[in-house]
Amino acid sequence: MDSVDELQPPDRLLMGPGPSETHPRVLRAFGTPPIGHLDPAFVEVMDETQDLLRETLRTDNEWTIPVSGTGSAAMEAAVGNLLEPGETMLVPGNGYFGGRMAEMARRAGGEAVTIETPWGEPLDPEDVRAACAEHDPDVVGVVHAETSTGVRQPSMPAITEAAHDHDAFVLADCVTSLGGIEFRMDEWGVDAAYSAGQKCLSCPPGASPLSISDGAMEKVLDREDPVRSWYLDLSLLEGYWGEERSYHHTAPVNNIYALREALRLIHEEGLVARWERHRRFSGALREGLWALGLEPVVAPSARLPSLTTARLPGGLAPGAVVETMREEHDVEIATGLGAFADEAVRIGCMGHGARRGPVLETLGALGETLSAHGIDIDPGAGVAAAVNALDE
Amino acid sequence: MDSVDELQPPDRLLMGPGPSETHPRVLRAFGTPPIGHLDPAFVEVMDETQDLLRETLRTDNEWTIPVSGTGSAAMEAAVGNLLEPGETMLVPGNGYFGGRMAEMARRAGGEAVTIETPWGEPLDPEDVRAACAEHDPDVVGVVHAETSTGVRQPSMPAITEAAHDHDAFVLADCVTSLGGIEFRMDEWGVDAAYSAGQKCLSCPPGASPLSISDGAMEKVLDREDPVRSWYLDLSLLEGYWGEERSYHHTAPVNNIYALREALRLIHEEGLVARWERHRRFSGALREGLWALGLEPVVAPSARLPSLTTARLPGGLAPGAVVETMREEHDVEIATGLGAFADEAVRIGCMGHGARRGPVLETLGALGETLSAHGIDIDPGAGVAAAVNALDE
Repeated sequence: MDSVDELQPPDRLLMGPGPSETHPRVLRAFGTPPIGHLDPAFVEVMDETQDLLRETLRTDNEWTIPVSGTGSAAMEAAVGNLLEPGETMLVPGNGYFGGRMAEMARRAGGEAVTIETPWGEPLDPEDVRAACAEHDPDVVGVVHAETSTGVRQPSMPAITEAAHDHDAFVLADCVTSLGGIEFRMDEWGVDAAYSAGQKCLSCPPGASPLSISDGAMEKVLDREDPVRSWYLDLSLLEGYWGEERSYHHTAPVNNIYALREALRLIHEEGLVARWERHRRFSGALREGLWALGLEPVVAPSARLPSLTTARLPGGLAPGAVVETMREEHDVEIATGLGAFADEAVRIGCMGHGARRGPVLETLGALGETLSAHGIDIDPGAGVAAAVNALDE
Repeated sequence: MDSVDELQPPDRLLMGPGPSETHPRVLRAFGTPPIGHLDPAFVEVMDETQDLLRETLRTDNEWTIPVSGTGSAAMEAAVGNLLEPGETMLVPGNGYFGGRMAEMARRAGGEAVTIETPWGEPLDPEDVRAACAEHDPDVVGVVHAETSTGVRQPSMPAITEAAHDHDAFVLADCVTSLGGIEFRMDEWGVDAAYSAGQKCLSCPPGASPLSISDGAMEKVLDREDPVRSWYLDLSLLEGYWGEERSYHHTAPVNNIYALREALRLIHEEGLVARWERHRRFSGALREGLWALGLEPVVAPSARLPSLTTARLPGGLAPGAVVETMREEHDVEIATGLGAFADEAVRIGCMGHGARRGPVLETLGALGETLSAHGIDIDPGAGVAAAVNALDE
């Protein structure tokens, strides 16, 4: 075959639904020479990473680990361990990732029942309560931050209460919320939660947070049938991440270096300060988007700070705008997903991207892009509105 | 919680069963800012990585991808896709990883039948033929390079012939051989093969090679029951790695950057030259080990160049020697695994570690270590023997 050139990816600003911008310190950690996955010095790195994960998830769960794969692997680990063949899982019907939960539940040998809710809206806790009464589920899945629609689930404690009243465990997707938006695992009564690196944690994908309460872990350890995945079986992973530190599989050492550094940055900033930063800069980004004529898909009470779904002015096709942003301005935003694929764009404001520079660069490029596509606006209106919002 | 210190892992020389030494260019690629997993520029990186994987595996299989996880994830993808519930898989009984294959086969809903062979010896193709006749398997698993014992399977074409005569697919573990030892997927008639980055490819773990022939992929696409893992379902991954390039899960972008660079180094060196380099430096390493009084576990005809299993002189406990090597000399070697856990050490000679410097440093440290543990040898005998072997 021909020779392959030096790796020279374009220098994109990542303001889509993830991967997000990465802090230079995280990249440096990524490129650190690995040590062995059973080296006592690496065990220390594992311990520290677990402590930092607990802090970020606001949990005391001993069972808090990075899964050796991307976010969907953590999701599959959560569903596949917690749900046994023949059991029932409720999943939300208001977005793409509830559908993925259902698919995983079926592959775990369980049954999935969808709580029907329109895309772009959060679940109503009363619907969860009614579905629990009707279907007697073993697990209730909830997506705290729907990456496909930009919807935040505002009523987490009410949902966990409804599920617990029916003795069901609650499994929460916090892929696009962890580290960017208030998430309180223990206080809210969430039994299992998973996330990913490449959203608000601002860490390239490959090692993904998972936390399981003692009660949920007891269910996992009491299973009659083994988990259908050996790789993701928590009862086996216990040997590696628990007290024993015995070999199960080779951990992705450098991904854990990077995740640890990303979590360390969160610790230094302070989690509450970080939530506030996401709120502030995503608010400014939105003011800029509205000033450019975009229209929100999601009602204010359920909007995710980390991801905005919006319709373009003049009926512009999302795909064309996404392409111009990427090819002409090196800024990544994305089209919608699922029901919103042809209707909306998705613009992220996550982690290291939730800052003045990335927000203004995105709005400036978008103003020029819309203008180039024939929309009659002031291309600078977006950046001006954002700066004014930040100045308030 | 307390603050967590800067990441400062010790500077170990990695000469165990993996992770192996990493080339600086691979680390630099790891630390390159990511772009989006659906970016056309990343699709190009994917294409190049697939081409390089095909070259390294010596295959034309279209279905050649890096799995988004470590080697065990690639193994589970291979077993879980190829084997359907109710089907039978033959697995080798001569090492740890054949046992893992059996475990995964059972979790896929299949039956595993072990071909009994002593640890430390290769399979006899006639035993495979007899087991095929007796059990009529759908899949025959074979471990080309047993990381637990240091055994190379020398008779791959005879094994695939025996399996194909009974219409079974052959699934080969080449975790500790790919990129270091002759492996010819198409010529040998291997239907599915998987590997890992952190052995002879010298790439930190996290994205792991998998290749499947058209015939085997046809079986996967014709399955009645869906694969039990959504994350590893090749019929879904086809959408992302195939023509369509549609979203399935977020790929570990930086791991693929690094794997591409590691494969590019192999392309530059030339695969045959690389096999020869492994042969030459592992040969020198072994001469050094024998000069220090270690004794081989495996017969010459089945010894893996990339990994040597050896008993220590004077009945020394492997654990104590491994610890001294690590703590006093910053050299990682490992104890045996499974049947050899308390009997032998495992010393790797893989990828960027298969060079003069690492071999001599290892032998020098081992000479001093054995001497410190009271073995009456010339501590310099190992390095002298290695240099003499290289000089021949």
